[in-house]
Parts: sequence; C-alpha cells; structure tokens
Amino acid sequence: VEVGARERLIEYLAHMHPADVADLLEQIEEPRRVRLVELWGPDLNGDVLTELEEGVRDTVLATLTPKQLSEAVQELDTDDVVYLVEDLDEPQQEAVLDALDDADRVAVEQSLTYPEYTAGRLMQREMVTAPVHWTVGDVIDYMRASDDLPEQFYDIIIVDPAMHPVGEVRLGKVMAHPRSVKLDTLMEQDFRTIPVDQRQEDVAYAFNQYHMIQAPVVNADGRLVGIVTIDDAMDVLEDEAEEDMKLLAGVGDEEISDSTMAIVQRRFPWLLVNLITAIIASIVISLFSSTIEAIVALAVLMPIVASMGGNAATQTLTVAVRALATRDLTGSNAMRIVRRELVAGTINGAAFAVIMAVVGIIWFGNPMLGVVLAIAMVGNLAVAGLAGILVPIGLDRAGADPALASGTFVTTVTDVVGFLLFLGLASALLL
Amino acid sequence: VEVGARERLIEYLAHMHPADVADLLEQIEEPRRVRLVELWGPDLNGDVLTELEEGVRDTVLATLTPKQLSEAVQELDTDDVVYLVEDLDEPQQEAVLDALDDADRVAVEQSLTYPEYTAGRLMQREMVTAPVHWTVGDVIDYMRASDDLPEQFYDIIIVDPAMHPVGEVRLGKVMAHPRSVKLDTLMEQDFRTIPVDQRQEDVAYAFNQYHMIQAPVVNADGRLVGIVTIDDAMDVLEDEAEEDMKLLAGVGDEEISDSTMAIVQRRFPWLLVNLITAIIASIVISLFSSTIEAIVALAVLMPIVASMGGNAATQTLTVAVRALATRDLTGSNAMRIVRRELVAGTINGAAFAVIMAVVGIIWFGNPMLGVVLAIAMVGNLAVAGLAGILVPIGLDRAGADPALASGTFVTTVTDVVGFLLFLGLASALLL
Repeated sequence: VEVGARERLIEYLAHMHPADVADLLEQIEEPRRVRLVELWGPDLNGDVLTELEEGVRDTVLATLTPKQLSEAVQELDTDDVVYLVEDLDEPQQEAVLDALDDADRVAVEQSLTYPEYTAGRLMQREMVTAPVHWTVGDVIDYMRASDDLPEQFYDIIIVDPAMHPVGEVRLGKVMAHPRSVKLDTLMEQDFRTIPVDQRQEDVAYAFNQYHMIQAPVVNADGRLVGIVTIDDAMDVLEDEAEEDMKLLAGVGDEEISDSTMAIVQRRFPWLLVNLITAIIASIVISLFSSTIEAIVALAVLMPIVASMGGNAATQTLTVAVRALATRDLTGSNAMRIVRRELVAGTINGAAFAVIMAVVGIIWFGNPMLGVVLAIAMVGNLAVAGLAGILVPIGLDRAGADPALASGTFVTTVTDVVGFLLFLGLASALLL
Repeated sequence: VEVGARERLIEYLAHMHPADVADLLEQIEEPRRVRLVELWGPDLNGDVLTELEEGVRDTVLATLTPKQLSEAVQELDTDDVVYLVEDLDEPQQEAVLDALDDADRVAVEQSLTYPEYTAGRLMQREMVTAPVHWTVGDVIDYMRASDDLPEQFYDIIIVDPAMHPVGEVRLGKVMAHPRSVKLDTLMEQDFRTIPVDQRQEDVAYAFNQYHMIQAPVVNADGRLVGIVTIDDAMDVLEDEAEEDMKLLAGVGDEEISDSTMAIVQRRFPWLLVNLITAIIASIVISLFSSTIEAIVALAVLMPIVASMGGNAATQTLTVAVRALATRDLTGSNAMRIVRRELVAGTINGAAFAVIMAVVGIIWFGNPMLGVVLAIAMVGNLAVAGLAGILVPIGLDRAGADPALASGTFVTTVTDVVGFLLFLGLASALLL
C-alpha cells in the first residue's frame, strides 16, 4: 500500500465485496493491515467488520476512530451489530451502541441479554409481519408505503394481535395471487418457530435438516421477537463442523491469521496433555524392560501395533463425532453401531494379524513372534473400535462436546492396550 | 412396525418432515427398513428419497415398484431428480426418467450431460425470468397468471432477448414498488453468475463468501440455463467439510448407516497404508537395535518423541487443510504461514525439550539421556510444523485434495524423523 495512493485504493476497495476485503485484511501482515485501515478508515464499509476473524477484527476496531466506527455500524442489521459488539470491551461496545439510532440500540441491547451462542444472538429484528386478516393487496400496499424494509427477508410472518406467529407466507406466493386473496388462505401453518434461548447449533441443525430459509424466533411467551435467516445458520453450521475438526486434532479456536506466539500458546496445552498420555504409555513399556532387553525385535515391532490401533480408533472416532453432530447417531441406533464397530475392528484386526504374523516370521524368523504380533493386533483393533465409539458417545451423554480431546484419550487407550498386549504376550510366550 | 398397522403408520409418517422420515429409515435395521418401505410404498414422498444416504437409498429404491418410484419423483424439482438418478444403474435411471413429463425429462437429461460435482448437476431449471423492459406490474401479472411457479425462488432474473442474464431483482424489492416502476431501475447489476461447469465446491464457496441466496447458472455462451439455490450450496458446503474431516482421519465416504462388512472394506485400504508407513518407522528403529539393546531406556522413551511430533504435525495439518478449504491460506500468505509454523514448532519444541530433559534425568538418572531427548524433541517438533504445512500446500498445488492421506503421510515423517533423531543421537552421544 503506497502512501498517497489513497484515491486509487478506495476506488479499488469499493469494487470489492466486503467479504473479499476482509480476506485481504486477514492475509496481509499486521503493520500493513493497520496502515490500510488508517488510509481507508473514513470510507470503511461496516460489512467488512462482520466478515473479519476475531483477532484481526480487534486490530481493525482499535485502529478506527470512534466516529469512523459509528459510521461503519449504522448501516448494519441488528444481528450483525450484535455479532460485532458481543466480543468487544465495555468502552468500545458503548461507542458502537451510541452510534445506533434508538430503536436499533434497544434491539441490540435486548439481544445481548440472551446467552451467547443462542438464537437470541443470531436473530435480526428487521422483519415483515402482517395481521391475519390482511389480504395480498394490504401487504403490497404496506410494503410500497414502507421506506425501511429489511434487506433480507423471504417470508412474511402472520401474527395475531398479541404478536404470536400463526403462519408464514412465502413472498413468491403473495405475488402469485390477486389482491383480494386473504393471507390466511395462503399461509403455511406447520412452520417451525425457534425459541429465543435455543442453542445455535440446534438452530443450524433445523435450517439444514428442514431446508429452511428464514424462521421466526419466539420468546418464552411465544411472542415473535425476531427472525433468523439462512446465512446466519450457514455460518454456524460451518463453524460447528470446523470446531469439531479442530477439537479432534487438538487445536482450539485457532485461525490462520493468528500470530506465531498466539499459536504457540494455543497449542501448548494440548501438546502437554499428549505428553502426559505418552508418558503413561512409556510407563507401560518400562514394565517390560527386561523382556525388551532379551528380545530387541519387540522394540522394533511394538510401534506398529500401537500405530495401527491409533489409526483404527481415529477412523471410528471421526465417523462417530460427525454422526453425533448431524444427529445420525442417536440413542436408538447407538447399541447397534457399537456392536458394528467391535465386529468391524475384530475383522480388520484378524486380517492385519495374518499380514503381521507373516511379516514377523519373515523379518525375524520367529514363528512365535508372529503369533504374538497377530494376537496383539486383533486385540488392539477390537479395543480401538470400542474406544473410538464409546468415548464420543460417553462425552456426548455427559453433556460435553464429543470431539473434545477424544483423539488424545482414545489413542492413549490404544497405545496402552497395544503395548500391554504385545509386550505382555511376548513376556509370557517368548521368554 | 406391526403388520396391519398401515393406516396408523401412514398417518404418523405423513406428519413428519421428509428429512426426519429419511433419518428414521437410516436408523432402523435393513429388514425393518424394507418392511417399512413396502408398507408405506404407495404413499412415499419423493422428498424422502433425496434426503437418504446413498447406501440406504439404494435399498429403498430397490424395494419400490416402478410405479411407486415414478409417482414419488414426479413432484420433485429437477435438481433433486438429477441428484437421485445420477448414482442409479441404467435400467433404474431409465424408469425414473420415464416417469417425468417431457420438459422435466429433457431438463434432467441435459443436467446429466454436465460432469459430476459441477454447477450443472446442482442447478434447478425451475426459475422466474423477466425481460428487461418489464415493469413491476408486468411481473405481478405474469406470476398471477402462471400456475407452475417454482417452489423455491427468491430473485427474479432479468434477461435480454438472447437469455443472457443482465440483472437480478429481489422479490421483496418488486413488491415494495408501484406497478409502473420498470424492473431495470430496481435490478442489481453486479450480481454473480455461475458457469455451468464450475466445480461444486467453488459454487458453495461463493454462496458462503458472498451470502448469496440464489444465483443464475450460465453456459459457455453466457446464456441462462438454471439457478442454484442456497439449500443446495449448504449441502455441498457441509459435505466438503465432512469429506476433509474424514480424509484427514483416513476414512472414505463412509456413512453411519453402512453395514459392518462395508466399513471393514472401506477402512482396510487406509489401515494398510498405515501399516506400510508403520513398518518404515520400524525399519528405522531396527537400524539401532544394538543401541537399544545396550540402553533399554531408549525403547521406553522413543514413543514419546514420535507421539509429540505426530500430534504437533496433526495440529498444523488440520488448521492448514481447513484454511485451504476456506481459501484463507493462499499463495499470498503461504510463505509467511510456513515460516510461522516452523518457528512455532521450534518454540514449543524447546519448551517440551526442557520438560522432557527433566523427565529423562529424573526417571533414568542420566543427564546425557535428557540432552538427547531435548534435542530430538526440538528437532521433531520443528519438522512437524514444516511437514504439517508443506504437505497439504503441496497436495493442493498438485491439484489433489490437501486432506487426502496427509495425516498418514505427515505422521510417517514425524515418526521416522523422531526415531532417527532420538536413536541416532543416542548412538552418537550415549554409547
């Protein structure tokens, strides 16, 4: 970014989609990022802020003057403002809220009273409602007269006088009927409402499962308080899948734009947990030191048994975590899936037992070593199947995220069982 | 499912959303699934078929009579029919196509001429277009006169006489303006079109990045051939995230509803690859047999070095694969990220080197063993950071899926390097 090129820069950025501008800001390094924002500040589009990753957003917000910030947020829908301010410090939050007009401010403050990660935080207040006695013509007249229609809405929500939603009409349907038709003859009555305190992953699940585009959000009294639109649900859905993937691998909510020291700090605790579990496995090995001293081939072969178990467990685990997230693994099929994993692990274990026995015999010319390898392989792959399915189900039942640290926990099980079986059998049969 | 209870069953299923019926079918066992479909067959809702996982869908399709199948598909949008028939055998495909009316059949056959996993397969033909000279009133009159409007559409596509899309108008915007207003004054001109041969993950990326709800699909001449709607894009987005997660863990496109033998077969090849890499690591260990024979503590400690390396590599790898999928890791920041991973790996390596040195000294009372452990740990975690980022970037540049088998490949690197460093140093310094 050359100094003096402000005009050209603004021209260029103005033609980019806010999401692409956000990506650009994320990809450049911090000093250049700050300079870009300083140059561009007065013309910054509020939508760019909502597209930024948290770490980068903090830098950008800190760079903007209060005036620039307030101008940027005025254009946003209330759900985007909520998303933006929920992670801010008190004084910055106050500055943003002050920039809003009164109605929006009340709406945002109201949303912030709902717990984080619930429908109340996702929803927007901008929506179109109509009383049940209106006709198509009434809606059209109302929309033509209104100068503040929401940017995004796909259904008109039909409400009773107490603001309870009683139906929904697709815009396309309203337009396809004559002015005299009453809305209640067009409306869908079995629509889904979302409780304002519903967890966001449940909201996203409903959108995905039922192919919803928009859904009314109701409070504890069943009164309409906002709508959730599919773009917000899509974001949540993607975040949840990403979160599972990262939890499985033992990385927290790290972003590619994080600094070196940030990722060092984020990864250290997970590696520490892994170190502890690795030491546990080592203690198991140390119990058999004299056996290994006598037959050094055991030291050569033992990582194979452990590695195969860890791999098989990770396979099962990943499928299970995913199936729990998509609600395809439930109480009604859990027992069957557990049985299936145990059987599948045993069958693959048997196949690799044969292969490994042959490898052991050829490599070390010791048939009994082949037998030990084979038994350890079957046993560890069966255990891998069981651990891979029981650990995530157990965590889920306990109310924890099934992906949380299951990888480390499950591979500890297969390491310990693998070393114990292989070295234990070797001590019994080969010495 | 009790025999004779057909009426109650149909009553019950009729009140369920097709997606929930599909989940039910997926969760029960095969014999009961077949019986349920046989009972319910004549009233089966076509939408249920599109919601089923592939394996289960095959069973259900095989159970339906040709007449039941054709009745079920008649109600579907063309994109859903394409999704349904693309995996069918020739005779079954023919049976479904015969059930469609001529226009739909042509549309489906046309879609099938586009390569799999492209926009051409995702798009629906049902859409609403308007010539550029129309007014709001013209559109409303057209929609009121039409008896075959698509179930899902959110924008009206403005086309020139040669069917090139020239703009888009949101339905809400049309309704908010008087009849006399011309559409070309309302339309958005910088909308995104999707080439019909664009890969589906690029389509999904665009929907997610630009918060699109609907997008026109154009052929090589720029003519409008269909639209993609957000629900299809959302499905693709979720599939892609799931695919990455499974590839990383070494499981193919396995579903939780697969049979035991199906998962045994799907997992075997991945486990075989892992076995081969594990044997490579073992060969490295065997090079140092005499060293291990002399100092058995090495056999006890060596899995720790390998495990820490594997874990650190998996962390880096997962973040990299995800960032590549979301296009947050690109040519412009790749070098910086590689440097960051190398530095972060080295720093965490140093931290764990200190910890491990202390553990080694306390456990085995051998300061030199502590030094060996420490150096091996720093080296392996630095290599882990490098391998974790370079392998997925390399695969991506080579046009392969960055998640494909990277897990196995990267942990092989860290195993080999870990054993080599640790045992090699031990041979040099401790013997």
